[in-house]
Amino acid sequence: LTDMYRSRNASHPTIIDRVDPVIWSDHGHCPMITAEDEKFYEKNGFLFLKNVFSDGEIAKLRREAGLVENSDPTDEEVISEPGNDEVRSVFRVHDKSDVFSKLISDDRLVAIAEHFLDDDVYIHQSRVNFKPAFKGKEFFWHSDFETWHTEDGMPRMRALSMSITLTDNSAHNGPLMLIPGSHKKFISCVGETPDQNYKNSLKIQEIGTPDQKNLSEMVDKNGIVAPVGPAGSVLIFECNTLHGSGNNITPYPRSNLFFVYNAMSNRLVAPFGGTKPRPNFLATRKDIVPVRSGRQKIQAAE
Amino acid sequence: LTDMYRSRNASHPTIIDRVDPVIWSDHGHCPMITAEDEKFYEKNGFLFLKNVFSDGEIAKLRREAGLVENSDPTDEEVISEPGNDEVRSVFRVHDKSDVFSKLISDDRLVAIAEHFLDDDVYIHQSRVNFKPAFKGKEFFWHSDFETWHTEDGMPRMRALSMSITLTDNSAHNGPLMLIPGSHKKFISCVGETPDQNYKNSLKIQEIGTPDQKNLSEMVDKNGIVAPVGPAGSVLIFECNTLHGSGNNITPYPRSNLFFVYNAMSNRLVAPFGGTKPRPNFLATRKDIVPVRSGRQKIQAAE
Repeated sequence: LTDMYRSRNASHPTIIDRVDPVIWSDHGHCPMITAEDEKFYEKNGFLFLKNVFSDGEIAKLRREAGLVENSDPTDEEVISEPGNDEVRSVFRVHDKSDVFSKLISDDRLVAIAEHFLDDDVYIHQSRVNFKPAFKGKEFFWHSDFETWHTEDGMPRMRALSMSITLTDNSAHNGPLMLIPGSHKKFISCVGETPDQNYKNSLKIQEIGTPDQKNLSEMVDKNGIVAPVGPAGSVLIFECNTLHGSGNNITPYPRSNLFFVYNAMSNRLVAPFGGTKPRPNFLATRKDIVPVRSGRQKIQAAE
Repeated sequence: LTDMYRSRNASHPTIIDRVDPVIWSDHGHCPMITAEDEKFYEKNGFLFLKNVFSDGEIAKLRREAGLVENSDPTDEEVISEPGNDEVRSVFRVHDKSDVFSKLISDDRLVAIAEHFLDDDVYIHQSRVNFKPAFKGKEFFWHSDFETWHTEDGMPRMRALSMSITLTDNSAHNGPLMLIPGSHKKFISCVGETPDQNYKNSLKIQEIGTPDQKNLSEMVDKNGIVAPVGPAGSVLIFECNTLHGSGNNITPYPRSNLFFVYNAMSNRLVAPFGGTKPRPNFLATRKDIVPVRSGRQKIQAAE
C-alpha cells in the first residue's frame, strides 16, 4: 500500500495536497442535512448542527457519561488531566455503555457518515472528553488523521468524527476550534514517534503536531472558527481538519462525546510510521463489525 | 487601621459586602467617557473602550513592549510561563521605558482614574502580560484587591487597572474574562500565604483564589463577559472585579499593557495578612509620586 501521506520521517515539515475526496459519495445529498450543509462541509471540513438531540436524550447521555467517568481510574482507557486527577478522557465508551452502543447506529449520525464516506462504516474510536470545570486543560492543534495514519495505519482520508455536545459549549469553556479548509492540505510533521507515545500524547500531544510556520500561514489565510451552542448539538469534522481547544477555567464543564466512523474499505493496516500498533481502544483493529450490517441506507435524494 | 476585608485567616470561605464606593467622585461624570459608561462601570465593575489609541501609537507601544520582553531573563521582574521559557509578564515597565512612563499621565487614562477614585493617583503596579502565541498559559480567577490587601497592605478598594490591548484580543487567544458585578462582594479566601508566595503566584496563582462554590454561584448569577476588540482598546476594571483568562494556542499573541492606579489616600500600610511586604516592583511602597503633581484635573461635567 503506497503511503500517500508520509509524516514524521523528514527533518523539515512539508505540505502535501490531499488526494482523497472530502465527500466520497457522488449520488445526491444526504436527506438528513441540506445541500448547503454538504457544500459547507466539503469546503470547510466541518459542519455544526444545533439541537440534534432533545433535552431528555442529552440528560440520558450525560448520566451515561457520568458512569464511565467514574470507572476504574487505573484502567488505561481512563486518562487524567496533566497535573491533576480530574478525568480528561475515557475511551471505548460504546463498549462500556448500552446507551452509547445504541447511539452509534442512530440515523442522525450514521446516515450522514455513510453518505460522506460512501461505504459501510465502523467505529474506529469512541471517547468522552470531559474538559472539567476549573481544571480542564487544552488540546493543541492537530489533524487526527496524521496520528491515525502514522501510528495506527489508517490508509486514506475516509473517516470522520461526530462530536455530540453533552454540555453547553460556550466561547468561554474551551470550545473546540477548527481551521476551516485545513482538511485539504496534509502537514507532514517533524519528529520521531517515541515508543508507547500514546501514554503521553493523550494528555499532552507533542508529536504529530503541525509546525508553527505552517500553522500560522493556514490561520492567517483561513482564520479560526469555534462553533458554540447548547448541549445536544453535533459537530461533524473531517479526519484531516486541524483542530484544538483551549483550557477551561469556568465553573462549567465542556463535555463532548466523540464517535469516529471509518469506512469499511479503509480499515487499518500496519502503522505507516513503522511503530507497533496502538491498543484497540484507540484504534479498532480486531472484531470489526459495520455499524449497520444490512446497509439499510436511507434513500439518497437525487 | 481596621481590616475591612479579612482573607486567608479562616478555615472556610465567606463573602463580605463591599463597604467602599465603586466610583468615589460625586461631582458629575468624567468628560472622557459618557454618563452611561460610568453607570455601566459602577454596576459591572469594568468598562471596555474601543479604539482609544491610534494604530501609530500602538505600533510604538508594541515596539517598547518588545524591548522590555527582551530584558535580562534572570531579572526577577521578568516572569516566564510555567513549563516553558516564553516571557509571561514583565513588571515595572513604566520605569523601564520613557514611552510607558509618559503614557501613565495620558489624559485618556489618568483623567478617568482620578475621577473614579476622586483623588490624586499614583502607579501601584505596571506590567505587560504577553500571553505568547501557541504557549501562553492561563490566569486563574482572582480579585486583584484580595492580594493587594492581604499581601501588600492596600487598605481600601480605591484602585483600578487600565489594560491597553497591544494586540487584537479575540475570543480565541485567551482574552481577559470578567464576572460582572463581582466587585460588590469580597470573597474571603482560605489558605495561609507561604513565604515569598509571589515567586509562584506570578506563574500560577493558587493562594488567594476564590473557592469553587462561591465562584460558581457568582457566575451562575452574573455570567462571564470577555470583551474583545482590536489593539488600541482600553479595559478599565475595578480592583475587586473577579477576572481570569484561558490559555492561548493560537498563532496570535494576546499582549496587554497594565497600569494600576491607586488613590494617594489609599497608600500601602503593613500587609493585612501579616507577611513581609512584597518587592516594590509588585507594589509601590517607596518614592511615591502622584502621576500629576499639580492635580490638573479636567473640569468635571455637571
